[in-house]
Amino acid sequence: MKLTTIRLGGGESVAARVDGATAVELEGYADVGDLLRRGHLAGVAGATGAVHAMDSADLAPVVLTPAKIVCVGLNYRNHILEMGRELPEHPTLFAKYPEALIGARDEIQLPPESDKVDWEGELAVVIGATVRRADAEQAAAAIAGYSVLNDVTMRDFQYRSTQWLQGKTWESSTPLGPVLATPDEMPDGAQLVTLLDGEEVQRTPLDDLVFGAVDLVQYISTIVTLNPGDIIATGTPGGVGHARKPGRYLQAGQALTTRIDGIGELVNVAVAERVDAPPGRETEPVQA
Amino acid sequence: MKLTTIRLGGGESVAARVDGATAVELEGYADVGDLLRRGHLAGVAGATGAVHAMDSADLAPVVLTPAKIVCVGLNYRNHILEMGRELPEHPTLFAKYPEALIGARDEIQLPPESDKVDWEGELAVVIGATVRRADAEQAAAAIAGYSVLNDVTMRDFQYRSTQWLQGKTWESSTPLGPVLATPDEMPDGAQLVTLLDGEEVQRTPLDDLVFGAVDLVQYISTIVTLNPGDIIATGTPGGVGHARKPGRYLQAGQALTTRIDGIGELVNVAVAERVDAPPGRETEPVQA
Repeated sequence: MKLTTIRLGGGESVAARVDGATAVELEGYADVGDLLRRGHLAGVAGATGAVHAMDSADLAPVVLTPAKIVCVGLNYRNHILEMGRELPEHPTLFAKYPEALIGARDEIQLPPESDKVDWEGELAVVIGATVRRADAEQAAAAIAGYSVLNDVTMRDFQYRSTQWLQGKTWESSTPLGPVLATPDEMPDGAQLVTLLDGEEVQRTPLDDLVFGAVDLVQYISTIVTLNPGDIIATGTPGGVGHARKPGRYLQAGQALTTRIDGIGELVNVAVAERVDAPPGRETEPVQA
Repeated sequence: MKLTTIRLGGGESVAARVDGATAVELEGYADVGDLLRRGHLAGVAGATGAVHAMDSADLAPVVLTPAKIVCVGLNYRNHILEMGRELPEHPTLFAKYPEALIGARDEIQLPPESDKVDWEGELAVVIGATVRRADAEQAAAAIAGYSVLNDVTMRDFQYRSTQWLQGKTWESSTPLGPVLATPDEMPDGAQLVTLLDGEEVQRTPLDDLVFGAVDLVQYISTIVTLNPGDIIATGTPGGVGHARKPGRYLQAGQALTTRIDGIGELVNVAVAERVDAPPGRETEPVQA
């Protein structure tokens, strides 16, 4: 089964089940995160509702506001080698805030503050159960499914200090979607591919991951409870722009495509963010 | 004005205004975060309601579930020197998830996985308005007030990789409270003090901060929108256990006190976490 989140306009959104080229509204669920938190994944397989054409639907991030987005660094063997490092004993974990998320076809905002915006195509794990210190079986059962994420990164900000957060969580920079695909949808030998204006820049089989989805759920849940709707971005393979000589970065007008077999693809055009207009400058003073 | 969040039992909580030794319930607000998100800070100065004695109230984290907790590293001149580093040009930012938070008198859980649990007394900034790319005036206006936080850190996990998150976000480890104090409550020359079983281990004037509250709101809001209820943990001064020779770490039974003039104090006893009991092992399988 595949599920998505569709914007209906006026700030409204709805979860939907994807049946081939159409998406069937699952009325009463504001997004896939809402559906997961209420534990209703199984119940929507046969639900009926208003129908949308998938190719023209306005797709939101598949989970609108994950309570946690846990990102993994240096988790593909080929990317670790590309960066000149050794295979790690433990995962490298960092965070991203929900304000960074955009939908599968939304524009990536290139802020004027950065001129080193890079791509990082990734498999995202969507959590469907509450787990702490999960064993392997519990961890597998806690995975509702998978999605595609591009951990778009402002490299200049990432390396301003030792901690990467400020390069990883720029507003409206990280596409997540187009669907949540339940684990049975994933084919053997699935590959992750990233394209820049149609040019292939990343291609890796998912089984090149050092720490797989179950490993990561076990590891992270040792530290902190994972809950339905939480997202784990599992890391990017080789082929990022910053590792090239000379470095290559996203330019306004370029289309970034991120695709995983069995899930689908994100297609996001990079645009220069407008910051002189009122929306970026609104401030509501505290009434104190 | 000072505000707090009180647990009423049965999973219920309520915001309250602290009038000296008593706390007056602000009915209809589940916590201080709820009140801030609804923009009602000014309206509760004269509100009346059920009264609690502050010294026996069950205090929750002053904001129960901040959408963002942004932490700052290496932000006191004396701590930077203690760690053998130079004064930074930019803040070091990392994250913590809300599951880490506990109330002002709750127990700090020492997980069996770590034997290097350390203290980091900090001033917390509580955001009261929505801001992006705030100028100095907007940033000051977006600060609802201040609270006390101890960024309790599992040093062994912090240094397992280059990224600190996994040492910073252990479940039920980070006290936040006892109150939100509006900026007018803060005296000139306010000091931050941390005590371990009554022994002073940290003492610093808040004006030793390299990046102050307004600087941080400006810097962070350049990257991502700050919203009411978001928390900025501004970093810890010198005196942490890990910097001592030999290193000192929290032991079960020790009381950690974190105090800031004008706000109040946290008193949290460290306890060995029980993980063999059912609550740590509950897993609700995904119904897929």
